[in-house]
Amino acid sequence: MKRVRVAIVGSGFMGGAHLDALRRVERVELGAGKHVVSEKPLTLTSSESAELVRLARDAGVMTAVNFNYRGYPLVQEARDMVSRGALGRLLLVHGHYLQDWLLKETDVNWRIESRLAGASRAIADIGSHWCDLVQFVTGQRITRVFAKLFRAHEERMRDGRPVRIDTEDGACMVIELEGGVVGSLTVSQVSAGRKNRQWLEVDGATAAVSWDQEEPNELWIGHRDRPNESLLKDPSMLSERARAFAHYPAGHPEGYPDGPRNLFDSFYAHVRGEASRPPVFATFEDGHRAVCVVEAALRSDATSGWVNVEYGL
Amino acid sequence: MKRVRVAIVGSGFMGGAHLDALRRVERVELGAGKHVVSEKPLTLTSSESAELVRLARDAGVMTAVNFNYRGYPLVQEARDMVSRGALGRLLLVHGHYLQDWLLKETDVNWRIESRLAGASRAIADIGSHWCDLVQFVTGQRITRVFAKLFRAHEERMRDGRPVRIDTEDGACMVIELEGGVVGSLTVSQVSAGRKNRQWLEVDGATAAVSWDQEEPNELWIGHRDRPNESLLKDPSMLSERARAFAHYPAGHPEGYPDGPRNLFDSFYAHVRGEASRPPVFATFEDGHRAVCVVEAALRSDATSGWVNVEYGL
Amino acid sequence: MKRVRVAIVGSGFMGGAHLDALRRVERVELGAGKHVVSEKPLTLTSSESAELVRLARDAGVMTAVNFNYRGYPLVQEARDMVSRGALGRLLLVHGHYLQDWLLKETDVNWRIESRLAGASRAIADIGSHWCDLVQFVTGQRITRVFAKLFRAHEERMRDGRPVRIDTEDGACMVIELEGGVVGSLTVSQVSAGRKNRQWLEVDGATAAVSWDQEEPNELWIGHRDRPNESLLKDPSMLSERARAFAHYPAGHPEGYPDGPRNLFDSFYAHVRGEASRPPVFATFEDGHRAVCVVEAALRSDATSGWVNVEYGL
Amino acid sequence: MKRVRVAIVGSGFMGGAHLDALRRVERVELGAGKHVVSEKPLTLTSSESAELVRLARDAGVMTAVNFNYRGYPLVQEARDMVSRGALGRLLLVHGHYLQDWLLKETDVNWRIESRLAGASRAIADIGSHWCDLVQFVTGQRITRVFAKLFRAHEERMRDGRPVRIDTEDGACMVIELEGGVVGSLTVSQVSAGRKNRQWLEVDGATAAVSWDQEEPNELWIGHRDRPNESLLKDPSMLSERARAFAHYPAGHPEGYPDGPRNLFDSFYAHVRGEASRPPVFATFEDGHRAVCVVEAALRSDATSGWVNVEYGL
Repeated sequence: MKRVRVAIVGSGFMGGAHLDALRRVERVELGAGKHVVSEKPLTLTSSESAELVRLARDAGVMTAVNFNYRGYPLVQEARDMVSRGALGRLLLVHGHYLQDWLLKETDVNWRIESRLAGASRAIADIGSHWCDLVQFVTGQRITRVFAKLFRAHEERMRDGRPVRIDTEDGACMVIELEGGVVGSLTVSQVSAGRKNRQWLEVDGATAAVSWDQEEPNELWIGHRDRPNESLLKDPSMLSERARAFAHYPAGHPEGYPDGPRNLFDSFYAHVRGEASRPPVFATFEDGHRAVCVVEAALRSDATSGWVNVEYGL
Repeated sequence: MKRVRVAIVGSGFMGGAHLDALRRVERVELGAGKHVVSEKPLTLTSSESAELVRLARDAGVMTAVNFNYRGYPLVQEARDMVSRGALGRLLLVHGHYLQDWLLKETDVNWRIESRLAGASRAIADIGSHWCDLVQFVTGQRITRVFAKLFRAHEERMRDGRPVRIDTEDGACMVIELEGGVVGSLTVSQVSAGRKNRQWLEVDGATAAVSWDQEEPNELWIGHRDRPNESLLKDPSMLSERARAFAHYPAGHPEGYPDGPRNLFDSFYAHVRGEASRPPVFATFEDGHRAVCVVEAALRSDATSGWVNVEYGL
Repeated sequence: MKRVRVAIVGSGFMGGAHLDALRRVERVELGAGKHVVSEKPLTLTSSESAELVRLARDAGVMTAVNFNYRGYPLVQEARDMVSRGALGRLLLVHGHYLQDWLLKETDVNWRIESRLAGASRAIADIGSHWCDLVQFVTGQRITRVFAKLFRAHEERMRDGRPVRIDTEDGACMVIELEGGVVGSLTVSQVSAGRKNRQWLEVDGATAAVSWDQEEPNELWIGHRDRPNESLLKDPSMLSERARAFAHYPAGHPEGYPDGPRNLFDSFYAHVRGEASRPPVFATFEDGHRAVCVVEAALRSDATSGWVNVEYGL
Repeated sequence: MKRVRVAIVGSGFMGGAHLDALRRVERVELGAGKHVVSEKPLTLTSSESAELVRLARDAGVMTAVNFNYRGYPLVQEARDMVSRGALGRLLLVHGHYLQDWLLKETDVNWRIESRLAGASRAIADIGSHWCDLVQFVTGQRITRVFAKLFRAHEERMRDGRPVRIDTEDGACMVIELEGGVVGSLTVSQVSAGRKNRQWLEVDGATAAVSWDQEEPNELWIGHRDRPNESLLKDPSMLSERARAFAHYPAGHPEGYPDGPRNLFDSFYAHVRGEASRPPVFATFEDGHRAVCVVEAALRSDATSGWVNVEYGL
């Protein structure tokens, strides 16, 4: 087994002043020629993320961003279905990412303040996962965004004292993909009863697929002229590539930790030169794209109109 | 039992040249002092619907528009929950109305052509139901609309010949309610496998409700700090008003026809002066409002920006 | 339209002393040459039900028993799938019929006392529906029964006074069909949260079907080597016979009342001689069979062993 | 950290001649004073399992059998609910364990032959899991069993040649718990579309719980007079003990491997003397009990009657 030098940089769980420090760490590691895996968001601004992409290119190393939901076998299967044409021409994408852990005025966290976590909260934190997912599954970039943000609480109570909130608790978004397909996304961290409900539906001219992170071992396949299907995560029914992401027999649920594990496995296979297929994990380019979409959404909300996503690279 | 004079005007199922004729019938019936029940859409333009509202007011008669989905007992229950504060302050509304009966290029119907069915198809035909529902359940009017329409087929084949299509197959919409609550709605008649999936979620500061027309006898109630609930249509658990809409014991499903039946019952109770509560059926005012929302959506798509909904009355 | 003479005899909702009176009515009506529709149970004992069958045969009239759940379109579809071999050789049947309306000690009703409602309660009242359903769908009679009855309350409180209970609140049953297929059935009127959950699964050598009365517009179809299917009640996807039982478009739910309506329609078509296919409603023979199964279940519980079902006719 | 000597003996995945060898290994390890974790089934006969229990007692070591489904947090929660009286007096238990991996005549495996895997297949392999689960959750032993076995194929094809099958493909069972509660269980390895569907419902006088291994992060709680509940695996809503089994936030699914992991963690905590609560993993006593239930089921099928389960220890 080839020895490789990899840096794992966990930024997402700290935030604040630390983010800058972490960026510095990543720059150093890239400079040292290490392959780097970063938590998401890659950075708080697209100029920073663009810089990291360039540094990685210059260093000739592999990079990954932990958009972990790609790592579920049925997400891989959905992507394969789209890319082999099983859905036909794409017509519409839609879904939501809903949580409730910030529902109450007394729910606080380092993420709620823009000076620590950046100008966007709900979109950057969870909406970006959905945007990565829809781009991964369809193979198409988001080119335009319309977003209306909302805030459930103008103030939250931290240690008995009010904190002014300047980040969004959620958003209603309309997007357009590079092929012209339109889509909609609802993001919320204040939807009572929804714990981590990331749901995506892709509707095509011959079939549709629908996937829900809270029941990740089932892929719904919609048909017009025959019964709809429920594809359980059954290795024997998956594409060769998706099957590699399924570790237990049919009916034995893969869980949340299996996603990142699969992406790490895939990353290590690539840095070792043992991978026979293009990477399925998100790279720094993807992480940069996610940052760009978030920025476009904020700008759209501010200007009440469509904003083109400029990737710049 | 008091004898009443009621005209039932079924416009929705004919369309085309007939719609004008039906409008004339309604004008005549109103002029003759009859109470009128109309299919939806009430009219194709808001100036016509405004006129009908004025005629009905002048005639002093009762009116109804068949927004039949209000007639399910759990829709009534959802409205009661909102109005008695069980959800707390409203934060977000979202949902979709998805069908697949117009998925294929060869799917044609009088509704596909604007000269027969009006300038809007998917929004006017099904989106208007959802908009009525969200306004009914929240008790708040839609004040602003952003809409991006899409068309799956620029041409459809009728009798082997191509027909140019100028109405939308669906739309991604963002709305704002009069209280400032934002919402999102996805409308589509080309989503494979979705037959008549009208789904609405209302998220409040203390709880959320979610209802799906395809499983109409269950109301999901989301909570932050305790288990979510599934309220089955059980007369013993419903509000007094919603209970009147439930005809069979718990576990015995109410079906599609029970909705219109309930609305007709309610309408007749009102025209006979036997009703003790405000009407729950949609009136011509509501039908007019629905037409106004559709017009605003078309204008929003054309101008790529928010459009205020002007009700005019 | 041919004029026919039909007697509708509603026994099920009265019980007690009335049941004898109703039997007398049925005898008179049969004697008068009328076609008869009876509520279920047809009678309290198999000797009585056998007599009614003979009277009807002698009178040359048509009979029906209101096993209403046959009337759902997807129950018809399940039967058609079995009969056209879509499931292959049958291997196993299983399911349950669960309610909770008699959960509490204070829940009373005429049905709880054997002198009014017969020696069996839960099996006779709801288990008999399931047994009719499994025989209808598979086309095979139940030939052997093992049953273990249970009682949640030895006494119940009626008007503040204890009533000794001598009928079962539920049962665990094992059955055998004439083709040798085994099955299991759980019956309960004391299962908290289950309102009218009648669920049946039929497992065959090539596929399985599963149907739940509380979500009657969906038929689950299980496969070994391809994704499972969910057949929504979509007229365009049903067999010709099942389609005739579906009154609304796909996605527009049929409800509880549509079942009896379909059976009455079918019955009238038969008495008028307008039916082109064998009847799908239960006849007095089927009603008699249901009574025989109930009696066998009671005998099995008393003797702690298998009991053959003797139909006698 | 205290150093402990533990032997992990994986028998379940080998079978055949190996099982005897593994038993010998376990005897040796016990003799050497090691704590032992064994795959299930513990042994093929109850005399062997009784012997292992005695050896372990004599050695004064801790033992565990990998009844892994106990390791899901919501199984722990269900047990806690029962033991703290949240369900009231128990009235009925029921459920099934269904798979389809042995549906076809050509499906073969070392488990299909009794000389390798023992006289029972479906009951020993999967029914025993359900029986352990129901005993764990209710805290009551199974005292009586009625079982009717069935076989889908009298012969199966291995390498193109027929193999005579003498083990069951499934069974319909009725059980009685020590408190007198009755229950039913359907076991099958030939139910098309069911991959690993282990489902258990426990019905009590005040509430019911229902859990399905294929959607293990949701516990259904049934109520008579208020809406049913769906308890998602949310650490903040679980009992202290169940919470220790949940590793990810609400909405982030625990998967199949988390169950055994939790049981191993618990086992090690016990052998290190660091555990503050009674063990929740299955011990050799439990493993022995499972073997006794399987033997009773076979005897019941052979004698067509109830068989008392004699645990002997």
